[in-house]
Amino acid sequence: MKFVLIPDSFKGTLSSTQICEIVTGRIEKHFPGSEIVSIPVADGGEGSVDAFITAVGGEKISKKVKNPYFEDMDSYYGLIENGQTAVIEMASCAGLPLVEGREDPSRTTTYGVGQLMMAAARRGVKKIIVGLGGSSTNDGACGAAAACGAKFFDADQREFVPVGGTLSDIKSIDLSGMNQALKNVEIVAMCDIDNPMYGPAGAAYIFGPQKGADEKMVSELDQGLVNLAGVIEKTIGKDISQFPGSGAAGAMGAGMIAFWSAELQMGIQTVLDTVNFDDLILDVDYIITGEGKLDSQSLRGKVVIGIAGRAKKQKKHVIAVVGGADDNEIREVYDMGVTAVFPINRLPQDFSVSRKYSKENLAYTADNILRLIKSKM
Amino acid sequence: MKFVLIPDSFKGTLSSTQICEIVTGRIEKHFPGSEIVSIPVADGGEGSVDAFITAVGGEKISKKVKNPYFEDMDSYYGLIENGQTAVIEMASCAGLPLVEGREDPSRTTTYGVGQLMMAAARRGVKKIIVGLGGSSTNDGACGAAAACGAKFFDADQREFVPVGGTLSDIKSIDLSGMNQALKNVEIVAMCDIDNPMYGPAGAAYIFGPQKGADEKMVSELDQGLVNLAGVIEKTIGKDISQFPGSGAAGAMGAGMIAFWSAELQMGIQTVLDTVNFDDLILDVDYIITGEGKLDSQSLRGKVVIGIAGRAKKQKKHVIAVVGGADDNEIREVYDMGVTAVFPINRLPQDFSVSRKYSKENLAYTADNILRLIKSKM
Repeated sequence: MKFVLIPDSFKGTLSSTQICEIVTGRIEKHFPGSEIVSIPVADGGEGSVDAFITAVGGEKISKKVKNPYFEDMDSYYGLIENGQTAVIEMASCAGLPLVEGREDPSRTTTYGVGQLMMAAARRGVKKIIVGLGGSSTNDGACGAAAACGAKFFDADQREFVPVGGTLSDIKSIDLSGMNQALKNVEIVAMCDIDNPMYGPAGAAYIFGPQKGADEKMVSELDQGLVNLAGVIEKTIGKDISQFPGSGAAGAMGAGMIAFWSAELQMGIQTVLDTVNFDDLILDVDYIITGEGKLDSQSLRGKVVIGIAGRAKKQKKHVIAVVGGADDNEIREVYDMGVTAVFPINRLPQDFSVSRKYSKENLAYTADNILRLIKSKM
Repeated sequence: MKFVLIPDSFKGTLSSTQICEIVTGRIEKHFPGSEIVSIPVADGGEGSVDAFITAVGGEKISKKVKNPYFEDMDSYYGLIENGQTAVIEMASCAGLPLVEGREDPSRTTTYGVGQLMMAAARRGVKKIIVGLGGSSTNDGACGAAAACGAKFFDADQREFVPVGGTLSDIKSIDLSGMNQALKNVEIVAMCDIDNPMYGPAGAAYIFGPQKGADEKMVSELDQGLVNLAGVIEKTIGKDISQFPGSGAAGAMGAGMIAFWSAELQMGIQTVLDTVNFDDLILDVDYIITGEGKLDSQSLRGKVVIGIAGRAKKQKKHVIAVVGGADDNEIREVYDMGVTAVFPINRLPQDFSVSRKYSKENLAYTADNILRLIKSKM
């Protein structure tokens, strides 16, 4: 038997790596000698570099860069595919946990992310994957761009490195000095949300508060993004402000497109491409995936559905273990390629109680799924 | 495909008949044309007659008898197996709901149960199944025995029909007048508990309070049962007071043994015998059973384990759908013949919430189990 395990994390309870380990334990018990491929799914946020390295092998490269407050820190990126591809999680140097106690999206920068990109480019990678997510910033990637050689000027032609609170001061952008090392590198941004750059559904209004912005600051950040969008349009000749995902990670999505012509991609698609999923499942018996909750959100190309889409083309079986399943909203999942869905709730317990038993509940559920599969042999 | 559905009820949420209907609906969708045998499991309590008739066919016979307060009422029994076997649920004329508002186990009688037994015997049945459970009484079956011709005397040699509160008055019992019609009838009592007749784990102390007895009455009822046990020993030459199940249904269990030499049987075994389960599953693909909660209680021969024991001998697959599964306590179920267990909790919700969605949750779970089974074909 061959199993491919490719679960998303169960947010707040189990990491995708833990899920792979637990399910692997049950498979080894019921189908000893099976081939088991574990691909913990990276969502672009914290842990994505480790997830990619676990999935395809590679190494973690340490690099001293600037933290969200322009202070020196030790960060890292991943080098996979024999050094051809770099994986950067922006959370590693621009993440919210790094500014605990001094959250302020009007002052924080993505500068370090640009430094990591430069470091990877100088190593000669052909592709850089940048995971968007978990950011403390709202600078529209201006900090990262500055680290790569972009120049931002105010009304007095003074060059500066914009942060969230000074985006409104940008009068012009000069991209001519962007480092040559990045020119021939394919840049992909992992981005699972489709919020626009600004406005009521934009970066500031939706994600500002959780980064520490009060109502007044949210409004100022939003205005700053409006200004940035205008200057970007002047600079590159395109309005990217309504592009789905441009509002991701403090408008990092917008900046990725504007400054590096990056492609925004659903994280699961990046993962599936990187692990050569289509080849991997040619001879698979069961693909086991999972999500914290399968609901209408899931249908928009998240992990389970992303995997099912690929599996369906090869008529492969996809079993989803989930923390919860909202039946009314997910009837379509079967047509979309999911074979069967099994929630892990052993007992009728509120999440506040059951979350403590996630490991046991997942092991139990996987165990019984495998017992049922075995029954037909 | 052939499926045998034989679930217990999910107490308080779904009857076993409802469970059969819901699962049948899903099977017809995924395996159209399958043979589906539905056996809603009777536990001896209310609904048992209907369950037997659903399972094997038969008719419900109306009969006017005495209710728990010796008042006339319309009751019934079931006639199955071409009139060879009668099924009586004692709850139908001695049940707790019949005395709502005037619960008093010191005054209530099982007289009507004896009348039903007499009626069935006069019809010429070879076997009477009496379901113990749901009773409002604590009369040690004395009422039922009196209806069948037993005579109870007090210290003054006065004949009377004892109730819970007057068991202490019994000085002697004369069984010589027990009706001849019952002599050659096999009598089986369905009884899923193993409490003794009296004492701290006995009928009065454990079940008295839920029948309306206060602390003082519980003690008096218990004393009455001690006396009855002594007179029974004098009468039949055997002490049955510690026999497991003798304390069932207000010591109806004890009386069934003493007055009719009945066999006390786990309800599921009675059902399995009656439906000829062993023959039924000779060509089955999957047996689907279920219980409200699978726990250490289940291991003591309740529905799922009772079924699994029979299925295991024929190496047949048993899938249990359950309201909850207590993992630590039920690891043995697989060795005991259960193939796989699936709790129906779609979402992490407390029972107070999820109980409203039992139908949907069961349908969902059955649906996905069948999808997984289908995936291997």
